[in-house]
Amino acid sequence: MNSNLKVPKLLRGVALVIAIALLGSASAQAQSDPLPSWNDTAPKAAIVAFVEKVTKQGSPEFVAESERIAVFDNDGTLWVEHPMYTQLAFALDRVKALAPAHPEWKSTQPFKAVLDGDMKTLAASGEKGLLELIIVTHAGMTTDQFQKVVSDWLSSARDPKFKRPYTELVYQPMVELLAYLRANGFKTYIVSGGGVEFMRPWTEKVYGVPPEQVIGSSIKTQFKMKDDTPTLFRLPQVNFIDDKTGKPVAINEFIGRRPIAAFGNSDGDLQMLQWTTMGGGPARFGMLVHHTDADREYAYDRKTEFGQLNKALDAAANAGWTVVDMKADWKQIFKD
Amino acid sequence: MNSNLKVPKLLRGVALVIAIALLGSASAQAQSDPLPSWNDTAPKAAIVAFVEKVTKQGSPEFVAESERIAVFDNDGTLWVEHPMYTQLAFALDRVKALAPAHPEWKSTQPFKAVLDGDMKTLAASGEKGLLELIIVTHAGMTTDQFQKVVSDWLSSARDPKFKRPYTELVYQPMVELLAYLRANGFKTYIVSGGGVEFMRPWTEKVYGVPPEQVIGSSIKTQFKMKDDTPTLFRLPQVNFIDDKTGKPVAINEFIGRRPIAAFGNSDGDLQMLQWTTMGGGPARFGMLVHHTDADREYAYDRKTEFGQLNKALDAAANAGWTVVDMKADWKQIFKD
Repeated sequence: MNSNLKVPKLLRGVALVIAIALLGSASAQAQSDPLPSWNDTAPKAAIVAFVEKVTKQGSPEFVAESERIAVFDNDGTLWVEHPMYTQLAFALDRVKALAPAHPEWKSTQPFKAVLDGDMKTLAASGEKGLLELIIVTHAGMTTDQFQKVVSDWLSSARDPKFKRPYTELVYQPMVELLAYLRANGFKTYIVSGGGVEFMRPWTEKVYGVPPEQVIGSSIKTQFKMKDDTPTLFRLPQVNFIDDKTGKPVAINEFIGRRPIAAFGNSDGDLQMLQWTTMGGGPARFGMLVHHTDADREYAYDRKTEFGQLNKALDAAANAGWTVVDMKADWKQIFKD
Repeated sequence: MNSNLKVPKLLRGVALVIAIALLGSASAQAQSDPLPSWNDTAPKAAIVAFVEKVTKQGSPEFVAESERIAVFDNDGTLWVEHPMYTQLAFALDRVKALAPAHPEWKSTQPFKAVLDGDMKTLAASGEKGLLELIIVTHAGMTTDQFQKVVSDWLSSARDPKFKRPYTELVYQPMVELLAYLRANGFKTYIVSGGGVEFMRPWTEKVYGVPPEQVIGSSIKTQFKMKDDTPTLFRLPQVNFIDDKTGKPVAINEFIGRRPIAAFGNSDGDLQMLQWTTMGGGPARFGMLVHHTDADREYAYDRKTEFGQLNKALDAAANAGWTVVDMKADWKQIFKD
């Protein structure tokens, strides 16, 4: 090897760096499992097989990088949705925080029920009552102000069962899946029934999904100039409900391409999975997370208030969607 | 140089390739002007100064790559909007194509005016008449079908003045500007009053802007399963008008971040420029294209049916927006 000593130092250095880089990446690839929190059961194999076939140049199922769009539901698919949607817990806390300025709430439903902690009466107020709570607690301020309210709440609120911040109750296997898809040229989107402005302040940090790739339900906003300062004011009026048939509608409106992979956990995701997997190209992937783990998280499907999985579960077999059995397929639910 | 001969061939090859690549990129950077169709007048200098300061690591005005969002109006900013919006020319052609199936149009306004080529009566039908034309010609089919109709029309239609396909009547200086921003880590978005599904079939090819970065006006769509095939059907109902105050509303709804640069040409872009440049961080850029070139394109501003530039032109001086004088600042309008 003495001959090498005669090579100009710079060139030798460069060659060495390249050799190390090449060796390093090859060995890293061979050693590391991109989905370490998944057991080696069927769902993991199905995910890896799908990713490998759509990324293999020359394969009949190869998909160009620009078309590798993957959509994820949020509640119950990426983070916990029991004992109630986190955004509902936020709304209840906001009612309590805002109550001093609204003495009339002490005698008006559904606010009275919230202040009394009377969940039965609250549930009886139905969708209309819940919508009223959401509107009152989510409107009447600028978008900047709302973002701060959400961030402040998330930093202090704790989940009642796990006693951890809600943003830590995200499913580690799904976080790995998001990263694995992105590492393979996918653009990952969230398509959630939850409020888009409730998610955007934290999805980039927690999931690696930037605000412009978060689609959700929304209320109307109004643009106003106030003393040379432009503001967007949140109005007490629903703009769009991003659930069920609303999901493919929103995917088309926001993304304008049909995804090739969709991940959900409830009947609210049925149409998103249909739109993604049926009638498009050859290589499509649909997956449902089935909550089967009462010990480590929750067990629920056909009969539950939040995240009902009934029609979509029946549809899965016919449609060829992968169903994840949380208990059997996930080594770990949360980080730590 | 004899010593080099003793280096293993592979390493020498690698080093050589690297040296060539490094030299090549350095000389390309020194020689090439990223905005060759712009004259060396104030607007070009302002654009380059802005890009350099927000991309210079350590500068007080440095902006992280993820926050480098630039928004562009389309009609009159990126492509020609006279003698009428291209989408209106499309709607008129569609009325003629669909007329055999609608004998009643021969005696119903505003359809009769279109079929008679009576532009005066058509104009008199006002916004309501034009909206009716748009709805009739843009709805009643699936999104896939509409996309094909648009693509087919664009491949055969010719602009009456320039006798060229509409997609060739895009402003070469703006195409260069889009590419220059992207080369500097910007994400470029279109935020247009035009229909989003009228633009998406061609913006990636023509501007390098992918469908998911195109925001526009829209009609409502409905999701339906038809014999196991999911479809989105276009309804004769306006969903959103992405103009004036609608532009900041849509930017917030679709992108969820405030842009740092906005490019427009008419009063329809006023609020988008306000939202982008006022009340945010220190480094913001606003620009208006002023149509001053009757010879090479058109000259119009305060008094015109399409693309009126009045309030926004008055606001530009106070707000510090760059105003492009097409005649003086652009070496070339179109490619070729």
